[in-house]
Amino acid sequence: MDVINEEQASFEMGVVVPKRVLDQICEGYDCVEVLVNEFHKAGLIVDRVPGLNDEFLKLTAPVEVLGKAAAELKLKKRTQIGVDLQFEWDEADAFVKQSDGSLFSWCERFRCYKHMIYGIVNKSNSAIILKSDCRVVRWEPGERLLWKLEKEGIVKEVFPIHDEIKRKQLLKGWALNWWDLTNQPLDDIYAYYGAKIAIYFAFLGMYTKWLFFPAALGILVQLVDFGSLQLLILPFFFICITSWAVFFLQFWKRKNSILLARWQICYSVGAESAYKYMDSEWSSFHSSVGMIKFGTDKSEKDNIQRDEWFCHMRRFRNDAIIILSIICLQLPFELAYAHLYESIGSDIMKFGLTAVYLFAIQYFTQIGGKVSVKLIKDEKNDNSEYRSNSLIYKVFGLYFMQSYIGLLYHAILHRNFMTLRQVIIQRLIISEVLENLMENSLPYVKYSYRKYRAVCNKRKREKGITARKSYFNSRVEKEYFKPVYSASVGEELEDGLFDEFLELALQFGMIMMFACAFPPSFAFTALNNVTEIRADALKILAMYRRPCPRVAASIGAWFNIFQFLIVVSICTNCILLVCLYDRDGNWNISPGLAAILIMEHVLLLIKFVFSRIVPEEPDWVKANRMKNATQAQNMCSKQLLRNISGRRGTLVAGTRYAD
Amino acid sequence: MDVINEEQASFEMGVVVPKRVLDQICEGYDCVEVLVNEFHKAGLIVDRVPGLNDEFLKLTAPVEVLGKAAAELKLKKRTQIGVDLQFEWDEADAFVKQSDGSLFSWCERFRCYKHMIYGIVNKSNSAIILKSDCRVVRWEPGERLLWKLEKEGIVKEVFPIHDEIKRKQLLKGWALNWWDLTNQPLDDIYAYYGAKIAIYFAFLGMYTKWLFFPAALGILVQLVDFGSLQLLILPFFFICITSWAVFFLQFWKRKNSILLARWQICYSVGAESAYKYMDSEWSSFHSSVGMIKFGTDKSEKDNIQRDEWFCHMRRFRNDAIIILSIICLQLPFELAYAHLYESIGSDIMKFGLTAVYLFAIQYFTQIGGKVSVKLIKDEKNDNSEYRSNSLIYKVFGLYFMQSYIGLLYHAILHRNFMTLRQVIIQRLIISEVLENLMENSLPYVKYSYRKYRAVCNKRKREKGITARKSYFNSRVEKEYFKPVYSASVGEELEDGLFDEFLELALQFGMIMMFACAFPPSFAFTALNNVTEIRADALKILAMYRRPCPRVAASIGAWFNIFQFLIVVSICTNCILLVCLYDRDGNWNISPGLAAILIMEHVLLLIKFVFSRIVPEEPDWVKANRMKNATQAQNMCSKQLLRNISGRRGTLVAGTRYAD
Repeated sequence: MDVINEEQASFEMGVVVPKRVLDQICEGYDCVEVLVNEFHKAGLIVDRVPGLNDEFLKLTAPVEVLGKAAAELKLKKRTQIGVDLQFEWDEADAFVKQSDGSLFSWCERFRCYKHMIYGIVNKSNSAIILKSDCRVVRWEPGERLLWKLEKEGIVKEVFPIHDEIKRKQLLKGWALNWWDLTNQPLDDIYAYYGAKIAIYFAFLGMYTKWLFFPAALGILVQLVDFGSLQLLILPFFFICITSWAVFFLQFWKRKNSILLARWQICYSVGAESAYKYMDSEWSSFHSSVGMIKFGTDKSEKDNIQRDEWFCHMRRFRNDAIIILSIICLQLPFELAYAHLYESIGSDIMKFGLTAVYLFAIQYFTQIGGKVSVKLIKDEKNDNSEYRSNSLIYKVFGLYFMQSYIGLLYHAILHRNFMTLRQVIIQRLIISEVLENLMENSLPYVKYSYRKYRAVCNKRKREKGITARKSYFNSRVEKEYFKPVYSASVGEELEDGLFDEFLELALQFGMIMMFACAFPPSFAFTALNNVTEIRADALKILAMYRRPCPRVAASIGAWFNIFQFLIVVSICTNCILLVCLYDRDGNWNISPGLAAILIMEHVLLLIKFVFSRIVPEEPDWVKANRMKNATQAQNMCSKQLLRNISGRRGTLVAGTRYAD
Repeated sequence: MDVINEEQASFEMGVVVPKRVLDQICEGYDCVEVLVNEFHKAGLIVDRVPGLNDEFLKLTAPVEVLGKAAAELKLKKRTQIGVDLQFEWDEADAFVKQSDGSLFSWCERFRCYKHMIYGIVNKSNSAIILKSDCRVVRWEPGERLLWKLEKEGIVKEVFPIHDEIKRKQLLKGWALNWWDLTNQPLDDIYAYYGAKIAIYFAFLGMYTKWLFFPAALGILVQLVDFGSLQLLILPFFFICITSWAVFFLQFWKRKNSILLARWQICYSVGAESAYKYMDSEWSSFHSSVGMIKFGTDKSEKDNIQRDEWFCHMRRFRNDAIIILSIICLQLPFELAYAHLYESIGSDIMKFGLTAVYLFAIQYFTQIGGKVSVKLIKDEKNDNSEYRSNSLIYKVFGLYFMQSYIGLLYHAILHRNFMTLRQVIIQRLIISEVLENLMENSLPYVKYSYRKYRAVCNKRKREKGITARKSYFNSRVEKEYFKPVYSASVGEELEDGLFDEFLELALQFGMIMMFACAFPPSFAFTALNNVTEIRADALKILAMYRRPCPRVAASIGAWFNIFQFLIVVSICTNCILLVCLYDRDGNWNISPGLAAILIMEHVLLLIKFVFSRIVPEEPDWVKANRMKNATQAQNMCSKQLLRNISGRRGTLVAGTRYAD
């Protein structure tokens, strides 16, 4: 196993098994040998790499083998005429190839690998006795081998591994390509990481590019003295920013639909949820409501309706619990901190208070996240998209209170704009720089620690037996030591993108909600995001294991959160304007207050009306989609009709026999 | 032609042609005879009824003939497995029957009739000379006969005619069935009038049923004295009303989707627009953008994008024109009237002013409607749904200003709640009663006038020639004299339902926007709507011609208008509350004002968040839809794939030949 060979073949999955201790020979089949044999039988190409303490099986498969797995999985795939159909290996020509010429996208390949790896069952009639380091494992008939081995702790992990060539290309052309500013090779990212991560980077890139406009405007407002118009310049800035945000989100929807059309992901505006529903929930539905017909099973229909309402009530209850606990527990805590911060005089005390506060909210957020995950799991909803969105909303609620309530307290009750600006700068610059540093260094520390421990273990075991031999040359082992790209809350529902989006949303909220208090914040943010793009790219390419690809058609719940933040920012900016112009604090600037109130309502109206002006989907994408649907229907219309009449004939015959 | 026969056969279309004057015999083919012959050739059954001055051709067709026309039209129809496919007569068994056992719905039948009637062309190579009362008409080869005859004024009108049996059933079971209150035989209405009218009556029924709750609450608030809580009762009432309205609209969406599932109209939440798009716009799209492929025709893609933006800009300009003219022209006029009304002392002057005002707004509204129609036509948009919605929004804008601005003026600037209540009562009771009377009597007057004129004409012509013979016994002639069910503005875009919905929306706005000023208005409205249901039913059954059926999946733009009215009502009620509690007029009830402002924002939030709690589509409807889609795809997946690979083979071969 030399390094060159390893780099040429693009192995895509890694399985970690214990290293065989050569001097202990037991009777019966060895687990690892059986596993490798079964992999070979399934058509996979296996490369065995010995590591320090474990052995790594690197897997890849020829396209025929993947195709057969895809056909078994009944994978839906885009065809040449643009309609998604079940994959069949014999008709592979009918399906669209990826932009890099391969038949399957990385996400599809990943599903096929998983299907093949976990699909190995004992087909014989009797249990097979497997041994591993003299431990006996009974592989029962019909049992999945890998599940069994994972349960017994023999297979430690199954994970996707990096493709060195493509990774290096991406490193050079994306992560280290600082001069591109906001441009990124999105198609390559999609091919390597799948839709969800590519959509995140597309969003981040577009957001950063659009940020340059308010950044310039913000600096202008801050630096230039407009003389007698100075009183009107902040409301003007506020109106510009709001329109900017509304248009940004609307154009993002357009861009999103263009990207999906380019990547040939099935998606239609609005019907999106239906599509996902079909994929993920269909199986559960089929059993419960598959047999309903109109007018026949009235009681069954009622049952489903009752279940539906029951489920809704439970969701409503959970949401109410979270909202009430945020309002009743978190809100007083945040206000208490803000009040103490305001009333304490000395800077040292303030620093100490902030330290205590930061420690406390870390703890609270974790508890909140855990409670949310528990409540969501309690709902027994099979729709994983719904569950992950629900978690996003709940956790965002926590962070929303945490991030903004204190600031609003400073602004509204104490009219302390100095503290407000101070805190905004502090959060924007210091915390984001720190966070970026942390994000990039923490995984490396974790990696180093795991590596160090493994080397120690190795030394301890092999002390004196053989001369020290450097096993540590395989990339797959290095990857195994790297941490998983996971979310800070609810690992099973979300991956590391959750943290990235949370950071973006909180940043967006910060600059939008307090736009009038500190216009230059947009410039800070634009600068920060330019570095963020490359830092995130570097992190995902070099610091973490390759993430499991996830299907996604949009940024999901985060889009609604951004919309919500725009609406809230309209209200908060109006409050800020009132506070700025009404320094006496008697809330009585009759014409001014009325003007601001009217402005608020007009802006809210604009927010909801303007988003209809820019269509979510460009005409040519829509035209293509329509054409495809019609074409497919026309192609198979006649045959379908014959099938239906035929089937109906047999159905009638069937009932006649039954009579 | 006796009455009994006429009642038994259900003729569905009427064509009005001039009555042949028997003593004038010209050479060549007679128009009417040729027309009747061609109808016979097309498979239609023709019944010729002589009238006073015209002759009526009543048409019907056996189901086979309709089926062939449907196949020629490539009509999409729901099949047994729940997917919409192109109709084929040979496979008629595969399609779902209507609830009354017929194969085609009234709307489909109407389309087929139109196709057959207007599809008669001169298939010979030379022009045919037709004569009518010695006038010569050249029927060119390939020309449509009916268009030609309509252009020459020989065929006066083509219109759907009532089915006497069903009409009488509906009269008995629906229009005169007062004791059912809000219940209506919706399925029968759908079968007889098509989806759009049935959906209107379903909406009206549900709205009236739901109105009973706020009606009871409003009377309670008005009559009971709550002692010290009196100050809080109006805000409470306001919150109840708002939640009621939000839930009502959300549950209407549910009901709508259930109705569509029952009537088997293709509809999916959100994708609705796409569906209509396909039907109506597909043809125009196909020609312009049918050939786009990704990455190949970049310039063409740019062209389409430019066209799209150009079209949007024009729409935007038109909308801006309307909005600006409403604000700059109508608003001052309305305010001037309100101000004069407020400042004039004597009641007689007030009455005169109101008369002048009413006369003026009639005129203004007509101008506004005409300008709107002109602007919309200027947009050259082929999507008839978009055009009709655009008209609805624009005309509603006019009426919105007209109806509410004066009231708001009384409330806010003069705090004159007496005038406000007076105007509300006046509008709710007097105007609605008057309108109902007018709506029901005007068509009868028109009908009587046309009948009278026809009889006069007849008498004049036949004076002294023959003894007076009563020709006036045919129902089809009576129907011909009845007015068309048309809108007061833009007849070509909307039918009479426009006026009905406008009335409902204005009423809803009136009671919602001024709920706090006069809580019992809900009770008046509930009573009024109970009579409205039966009055409208009577009107459409007895007073008007049978309306042309129109396809619709929802109440369309009106739904958005109702949503908009709820939002506006939240704001106006808050203003009213401020005015009610702050009698001094110094806008300074600090805690109270702040509380009301907070309440407003919370309610607005609830409006947008709560509408997500109730799902638009019941689970079982969704399940059915999903099942159908999957089933259809699975059935034809293989064959489609073979087609695609096959077609691709020939395509490749084709290019090879071309090379």
